[in-house]
Amino acid sequence: MHAIGVDIGGTKIAAGVVDEFGNILAQTRVATAAGDPASIDASIAQVCEILAAEHTVGAIGLAAAGFCSPDRTSVQFAPNIMWRDYPIADKVRALLGTEIPIVVENDANAAGWAEYRFGAAREATDMLMLTIGTGLGGALVVNDQLVRGRYGVGGEVGHMRVVPNGHTCGCGHDGCWEQYASGSALVREARAMAIKSPQRAQLLIDLAGGDVELITGPLVTTAAQQGDEFSQSLLAELGRWIGEGAASVAALLDPEVVVIGGGVAAAGNLLLQPSIDAFVTSLPARGHRVEARFALAKMGNEAGIVGAADLARQ
Amino acid sequence: MHAIGVDIGGTKIAAGVVDEFGNILAQTRVATAAGDPASIDASIAQVCEILAAEHTVGAIGLAAAGFCSPDRTSVQFAPNIMWRDYPIADKVRALLGTEIPIVVENDANAAGWAEYRFGAAREATDMLMLTIGTGLGGALVVNDQLVRGRYGVGGEVGHMRVVPNGHTCGCGHDGCWEQYASGSALVREARAMAIKSPQRAQLLIDLAGGDVELITGPLVTTAAQQGDEFSQSLLAELGRWIGEGAASVAALLDPEVVVIGGGVAAAGNLLLQPSIDAFVTSLPARGHRVEARFALAKMGNEAGIVGAADLARQ
Amino acid sequence: MHAIGVDIGGTKIAAGVVDEFGNILAQTRVATAAGDPASIDASIAQVCEILAAEHTVGAIGLAAAGFCSPDRTSVQFAPNIMWRDYPIADKVRALLGTEIPIVVENDANAAGWAEYRFGAAREATDMLMLTIGTGLGGALVVNDQLVRGRYGVGGEVGHMRVVPNGHTCGCGHDGCWEQYASGSALVREARAMAIKSPQRAQLLIDLAGGDVELITGPLVTTAAQQGDEFSQSLLAELGRWIGEGAASVAALLDPEVVVIGGGVAAAGNLLLQPSIDAFVTSLPARGHRVEARFALAKMGNEAGIVGAADLARQ
Amino acid sequence: MHAIGVDIGGTKIAAGVVDEFGNILAQTRVATAAGDPASIDASIAQVCEILAAEHTVGAIGLAAAGFCSPDRTSVQFAPNIMWRDYPIADKVRALLGTEIPIVVENDANAAGWAEYRFGAAREATDMLMLTIGTGLGGALVVNDQLVRGRYGVGGEVGHMRVVPNGHTCGCGHDGCWEQYASGSALVREARAMAIKSPQRAQLLIDLAGGDVELITGPLVTTAAQQGDEFSQSLLAELGRWIGEGAASVAALLDPEVVVIGGGVAAAGNLLLQPSIDAFVTSLPARGHRVEARFALAKMGNEAGIVGAADLARQ
Repeated sequence: MHAIGVDIGGTKIAAGVVDEFGNILAQTRVATAAGDPASIDASIAQVCEILAAEHTVGAIGLAAAGFCSPDRTSVQFAPNIMWRDYPIADKVRALLGTEIPIVVENDANAAGWAEYRFGAAREATDMLMLTIGTGLGGALVVNDQLVRGRYGVGGEVGHMRVVPNGHTCGCGHDGCWEQYASGSALVREARAMAIKSPQRAQLLIDLAGGDVELITGPLVTTAAQQGDEFSQSLLAELGRWIGEGAASVAALLDPEVVVIGGGVAAAGNLLLQPSIDAFVTSLPARGHRVEARFALAKMGNEAGIVGAADLARQ
Repeated sequence: MHAIGVDIGGTKIAAGVVDEFGNILAQTRVATAAGDPASIDASIAQVCEILAAEHTVGAIGLAAAGFCSPDRTSVQFAPNIMWRDYPIADKVRALLGTEIPIVVENDANAAGWAEYRFGAAREATDMLMLTIGTGLGGALVVNDQLVRGRYGVGGEVGHMRVVPNGHTCGCGHDGCWEQYASGSALVREARAMAIKSPQRAQLLIDLAGGDVELITGPLVTTAAQQGDEFSQSLLAELGRWIGEGAASVAALLDPEVVVIGGGVAAAGNLLLQPSIDAFVTSLPARGHRVEARFALAKMGNEAGIVGAADLARQ
Repeated sequence: MHAIGVDIGGTKIAAGVVDEFGNILAQTRVATAAGDPASIDASIAQVCEILAAEHTVGAIGLAAAGFCSPDRTSVQFAPNIMWRDYPIADKVRALLGTEIPIVVENDANAAGWAEYRFGAAREATDMLMLTIGTGLGGALVVNDQLVRGRYGVGGEVGHMRVVPNGHTCGCGHDGCWEQYASGSALVREARAMAIKSPQRAQLLIDLAGGDVELITGPLVTTAAQQGDEFSQSLLAELGRWIGEGAASVAALLDPEVVVIGGGVAAAGNLLLQPSIDAFVTSLPARGHRVEARFALAKMGNEAGIVGAADLARQ
Repeated sequence: MHAIGVDIGGTKIAAGVVDEFGNILAQTRVATAAGDPASIDASIAQVCEILAAEHTVGAIGLAAAGFCSPDRTSVQFAPNIMWRDYPIADKVRALLGTEIPIVVENDANAAGWAEYRFGAAREATDMLMLTIGTGLGGALVVNDQLVRGRYGVGGEVGHMRVVPNGHTCGCGHDGCWEQYASGSALVREARAMAIKSPQRAQLLIDLAGGDVELITGPLVTTAAQQGDEFSQSLLAELGRWIGEGAASVAALLDPEVVVIGGGVAAAGNLLLQPSIDAFVTSLPARGHRVEARFALAKMGNEAGIVGAADLARQ
């Protein structure tokens, strides 16, 4: 059975028809006005109609950046769009005038599911996915099942606390993992060190045109790949926090694979190897257990589409 | 179908016949010599034969303090008994000379399963169980399934790291949750504070006959229940660590209920209320989610027997 | 000998004639344009001339918010005024056309010196002064001598690190004491808790007119003095950080008295008692040493004038 | 004027005649029975008589491992010898039957003073001395004066807290600097890592004859000097804690020089360079201040004798 997956972003909606092997058969996208749920509904219906005109589909999955209800019909809360207990599946179904099954899933969970089903964790039963972008998102698969949590709020890995009284997080708490293992953390540390140790950071500062405030995550990665030791040490430090946090998750869930995705994953082995080193060093009962392997995400920007479509089929 | 559950301890083996509602229909126990796997096998077979003589049983579940293989046939490693990749299910089956299904499960997981099926989490789908004894054990249920982990090492909640560079744990790492949320932590803090602030700790010191080294967890609980503010503050601090750590787990798993068991749970509300306060204060996205409820464990010392029997039936 | 003390602020310059007992005999002030060193020099000269017209003075002490040179003639660096290796004493002396001795001292050091000579630490030989305002400033007296440091940068108590990987400080580092023991920290915690636990913070939120962003330090103090338990707990937490940090300083310097000043000191005993409790509990070798006493600052807003004048006489 | 310095150890007493340039003109030692103050007095008198028979001396300084009274006549408390408010100067003077001035000083302070007067900090006015042996001792010089503290307990640098809820210290508190920057910490980490990452630690384990428990500080240094990367990383981590803690002290005291002594200092630059790197990176207001230099101690095992003698002359 083919299904449509819809990835609802703040400024655009991307959708595709996905087959049972995770292949995208057709794809389309429209721009959208963030913040207006009704207009978003209309855009979703529009892309679905476009795709359904050419393809027979049996289900529609929506990937939304928010907390989704456990019955997969509503978005309970979203930080960036005005969804508040919003029955998005019913709304879209009404617009489409069809009885097709429609479900909504958290976007990070959907993307993680795509990796589990078709990507880097394809043959695993238990997965920790970490999406290291501006923040730290993620997804968990346990016993071949996506962890949504009892109330739809599971998988918020970035808000596990790793440092008591640590950096203030946007969530209102202190010391969240996201504050140490994310692109924002990388940039914060890079800029702070560039001010504190300008000599060590010379190449990076030069690449930023002399302006510390123009240092970005991709710039650090570029410099590191060019052999800049300082930038490599920044990625290594980021990797250390990734690996140490992942070891805490492994104490709970003993996953088979840890998938690293998101923009920062572009650093590849310069990030992965320090993550692995810290993970194995921090793993409880090491030597008496099989250690999870680490892998880079494979599904790219379409992970949300593919995962939402596949979850709609389940 | 009735099943036998066997709880294998360091000095004794307790077993019972358990019905489908978690009731123990018959029970027996034998003393055992820790450390000798073959002798333990014989003792297990002995108690099973005694029980099976009077009851028809369809399965046997063994609860063992060690890492169990994902196929539930072997103990891969145990800290206190010399099991090393030990095929305990086959060994016991050979002694019994029967084809009855036998499975082995981690004892903390078995006890947690009993709470999930018949006890404090009976109507929940997602549970965090914390067993606060000398150490901090626990169990996780996600989507109505016990979390064993891909390699049988899941649910080791006590070794999630909560303080970087924190107290050294017996596991070889620093800052494990167990070092802050356990009976040992309670006693360590009680003794340290009794030395540092003897006036505040006067009642507790008196109860210990004047010897700080004789302060125990039950003594702290007794003093707290008698109204001793200092002992209450020690339990409150323990509760704070419980609640803050549970909030990190909730960020990952969004459970419906957090069950508190183990010897320290005897403190009841003096421990539970501070745990809840810290949990809700530390919960990410509070106000936009349903908060897990806290409950004291109900299954008592027989939880391992009941849980192992029930898991054997699954 | 009488001396003039000049307290150079960002928007005004206050000056007074100070006798040998710390009394201010005459006082004057002028508004000033922050950021322009030459204009500040002129204002300083102006107030000195006004005061010197009526009083015979033997020295002038300037209190400046910056790092002062060890020879007390220049400001090496200031965060808010464009002093960079600025020979302020010579500049002012040239404007005055006199040979009178002029020295410049760090303003927090000057204020601390006033407490040591004439205020809360009057009979002590070793003092830790903590000025808890927006930030955490302070001063140290060791062996009856002001600690300026070898290069004029001593006494920056607020930048002792108390939490590795902790809150980012305006200084570019993480975990500085100032991030935990200051008015800003109090307000940050009050607002965060008001969002996370609105019920507990109800009175405080009401006092702020329902707007969490309008919660201020004085509001917390007011609510605490009216008996609000939540506000009292915020001050107690602030006090805990004060006391624990002071214990670290005491490990190094073994002071006789810890003086608490700055705007937050208006909370009085609601802040002082938790500070003392945490201090004594955290003090190394407690029971084998005399514990420093805590005292509220006595010199008020004129401490800078009095201290600068007195230091000019030394 | 020549003076005698006496270094009172647990098992022996070493003494020497010291000239005004810090040279030892004569030296002697006797074994002693730890724990018996009277017998120690007699031994001290004995070595003083031996030295005074050949040399004219004007003062005697005793270096004792304990808290000394501010008037330098008594030991108030010692952890390893049964001194409790013990008037050691009077006792020794009575045995000697002379009116010669006798003072007692803390042994770490005496050793630090020797470095300040004649050793690595010879031309400095403000010094932080760190003695990194089994524990972390030290001494502070501020404004050319030894910091004894108001009650004789100053300079206990090892008990500044650097990690809240950190490693338990022998002093009864958690997170003391000594738990991170000492030979014991080095050995603890080396052994823990050897268990957790045996491959990385292979050379070190081999040097220890295959027994992790036989890994010692000198062994780590030896391996590091032979190029073992793992051992070098252990020293680098130790250096990181040294430098970061020293930066906190520098926030308070702005020293001119940080002197590194004690057994672990034998690692030389392998320890010193990471210490310096961490120090400058962690220093508040870096770029607007002169940074303290780091130096290895020069006075060796005789530092206590030389410092005590010189302090007796002051």
